[in-house]
Amino acid sequence: MRHLLTVADLDADDLTHLLDLAENFAEVQRRDIKKVPALRGKTIVNAFFEDSTRTRTSFDLAARRLSADVVTFSAGSSAVNKGESLRDTVETISAMGVDAIVVRHASSGVPHQLTAWTDASVINAGDGWHQHPTQALLDCFTIRTHLGGLEGKRIAICGDVNHSRVARSNVDAFTKLGAEVVLVGPQSLMPASLAGWPVKVESNFDAVLPDLDVVYLLRIQNERLSSGLIPSLREYRELYGLTAARLGRLGPESLIMHPGPMNRGVEIDPEAAEDPRAVVLDQVASGVPVRMAVLYQLVGVGPIGKIAEAVA
Amino acid sequence: MRHLLTVADLDADDLTHLLDLAENFAEVQRRDIKKVPALRGKTIVNAFFEDSTRTRTSFDLAARRLSADVVTFSAGSSAVNKGESLRDTVETISAMGVDAIVVRHASSGVPHQLTAWTDASVINAGDGWHQHPTQALLDCFTIRTHLGGLEGKRIAICGDVNHSRVARSNVDAFTKLGAEVVLVGPQSLMPASLAGWPVKVESNFDAVLPDLDVVYLLRIQNERLSSGLIPSLREYRELYGLTAARLGRLGPESLIMHPGPMNRGVEIDPEAAEDPRAVVLDQVASGVPVRMAVLYQLVGVGPIGKIAEAVA
Amino acid sequence: MRHLLTVADLDADDLTHLLDLAENFAEVQRRDIKKVPALRGKTIVNAFFEDSTRTRTSFDLAARRLSADVVTFSAGSSAVNKGESLRDTVETISAMGVDAIVVRHASSGVPHQLTAWTDASVINAGDGWHQHPTQALLDCFTIRTHLGGLEGKRIAICGDVNHSRVARSNVDAFTKLGAEVVLVGPQSLMPASLAGWPVKVESNFDAVLPDLDVVYLLRIQNERLSSGLIPSLREYRELYGLTAARLGRLGPESLIMHPGPMNRGVEIDPEAAEDPRAVVLDQVASGVPVRMAVLYQLVGVGPIGKIAEAVA
Repeated sequence: MRHLLTVADLDADDLTHLLDLAENFAEVQRRDIKKVPALRGKTIVNAFFEDSTRTRTSFDLAARRLSADVVTFSAGSSAVNKGESLRDTVETISAMGVDAIVVRHASSGVPHQLTAWTDASVINAGDGWHQHPTQALLDCFTIRTHLGGLEGKRIAICGDVNHSRVARSNVDAFTKLGAEVVLVGPQSLMPASLAGWPVKVESNFDAVLPDLDVVYLLRIQNERLSSGLIPSLREYRELYGLTAARLGRLGPESLIMHPGPMNRGVEIDPEAAEDPRAVVLDQVASGVPVRMAVLYQLVGVGPIGKIAEAVA
Repeated sequence: MRHLLTVADLDADDLTHLLDLAENFAEVQRRDIKKVPALRGKTIVNAFFEDSTRTRTSFDLAARRLSADVVTFSAGSSAVNKGESLRDTVETISAMGVDAIVVRHASSGVPHQLTAWTDASVINAGDGWHQHPTQALLDCFTIRTHLGGLEGKRIAICGDVNHSRVARSNVDAFTKLGAEVVLVGPQSLMPASLAGWPVKVESNFDAVLPDLDVVYLLRIQNERLSSGLIPSLREYRELYGLTAARLGRLGPESLIMHPGPMNRGVEIDPEAAEDPRAVVLDQVASGVPVRMAVLYQLVGVGPIGKIAEAVA
Repeated sequence: MRHLLTVADLDADDLTHLLDLAENFAEVQRRDIKKVPALRGKTIVNAFFEDSTRTRTSFDLAARRLSADVVTFSAGSSAVNKGESLRDTVETISAMGVDAIVVRHASSGVPHQLTAWTDASVINAGDGWHQHPTQALLDCFTIRTHLGGLEGKRIAICGDVNHSRVARSNVDAFTKLGAEVVLVGPQSLMPASLAGWPVKVESNFDAVLPDLDVVYLLRIQNERLSSGLIPSLREYRELYGLTAARLGRLGPESLIMHPGPMNRGVEIDPEAAEDPRAVVLDQVASGVPVRMAVLYQLVGVGPIGKIAEAVA
């Protein structure tokens, strides 16, 4: 494993291996000193061409807690503004001797393109509507922690599946780990073709809810409204929001998940966001050890045999 | 002490304790290697929702010189832009495992609000017109260093008291440590009520000057002019500026202070800013050890008995 | 040597000394752990008042790989925006106890001005059209690595010499180290007077090419077009671009250099940028050890006798 571009490159064993690694780093996060020297002297570049607080900060902390040096550059301050091509920027940064480039970009496929221009490991931190593999890993980690595993679990992913890299990544990861995935949402927000997606589609949210182990809500972007894909936020909430009224239909051990940031009152009511079954902040918390695992796997010594040393 | 929100939460002993701690860190700052491992593995978040070079950099350096990891996020790059609520932002950052959040915000009370949303220590780095407690501490530290203490000292705070978090914090800290405070400025820039403020008010700057141990000038913001609270900068300077002409009225051992950035030619003439009695850069220099003390107290082992170890 | 402001302050021995130091750090860059503790506890400020990815990142990495703490502030977030003078900003930052200030500014002479306001070492990272001494050092380092040295080498600097701090720095450095420099470009882009420049000027690029050891291309800024100094990019490329057609005229061991970012299709054709003789990324790679050498020389123990220890 040299890069982490898409969940498609990982099989169930790879996913499980990364999640097992992450458990080790989660234990480090419970210590008073949350830092290990595993990547001392290594350089991680955070190249975010699209705004992000949570993912950038999470990768930042993950790298530092492995004792790596982190260089951040965002579109605003970069030479990409001067008309320098993305390729020149990446080749330049790489020439300075970096070990991994964490990239977020509005265009699908940019992380894959980067691999042609650098010797560093490339980690996809979200590219267009395509993939966000570390989100899928942290979601799997959260489910595994709360429910013991994904095998046989029934998970609904609700909302704007078509424009969601989170949905694409999670469908692949959840099903590879043995879960059954059902997509819930209006036809207008579903991919034109679901050929090859090992999922069912449901439009009746209420019918699905009682059987779910996990209800995973996607963020509704304002541009879906202005482009006419949904008629109104109020109608969307009525049909597909996890409203306070719907909470009673969900089992007592089920999980409510959301990749954040949440639109309270749209895809999720405030009552649902505060419900004890909601694990949204656990998802955030899982992000750090999961990204430590990915960085360690790609940049560090790698073989799981040595992880005991790395976190000692 | 879990948070540092306002000087109101500190009594004279607390203030003295923090200033004593700061002396230890000031000694560290005079070393060739200005760094101690006291907060290794701890994470400090610098959350500045309002621009600031000096305060942000000062906290940044304080945290690094304690060997903490520092994560900075400013309004510009944060998800607050995407419409994420402040609460979600703070809960998200906290979930990643941070030990302290240093917050500056244009609205009074935001730091206090944050304490409901995070397990981390919250440090107020300036909130609206309300409080800026580390500024008060560094000002006390500077006065103590130059004049031996604050007990019985006569300090004038001059200018826009009403809109100044620095004034509110300093009035409280100075008087708790035994100084006598007089406010100097036009009626239009004084708080509507001074009930409970242990201060005198004077409008004749020249009459006050000869008896002062410290003259503390506040920055005049341009918006005071446009809102009509002061008629003109020229008239303001005539009446309340520390002009070159007024320098002779100030005692030879007195101190000239300003929180910066200075408006030369408005509240302070260039000659006064360059005067040997001006300790404006000493105030800046005191900021780093004072903030190291605060971070150490809130995030580190805390008890003063261990400070000898921390700076060993 | 307290500051690095201009190549004019360095003689051949100084240049050679810094390049020798840089060799030591280049060796560190080839290690698995690219970091030495030489500047632990030191603080380097990156003060970039003009945008730059490559130079800022290069200094940033250089400082961290010496284990220094790095504080970055860019014009956008600084109090310079609030109307604070550059002097106040520099004095404020200096008062916090910093060891070096790396400054880039659109105005010539700003780094020199700074030396009056700070005890820190000042390093010029590019000031207007004036100087960019670390660029000259990294270019010399690259040439020395590939050609064994600069003595007797024939180097053409092509393009917009008049508006180029890179050209001014390199003419001085290259000639001090014994190279012969010829400037190539239209009269309108040459300095009004070349009195005191130990160079020849040529307008026929094709005539010069076969004898060169190094062809060094300068970036054409768009504003040269709008100001009428060059009639069109197409005509410029015809006369002074390193086109694919011209590549055959260049010797097989010659080097193609460019400070970046490149305007492919203007001063350099894509074929030339990809040619095996192009060492543009080697220049970038040399930036880190060269800047480590400069920081070490100015902030670290300095004497070359100790370098063996510093990189041990």
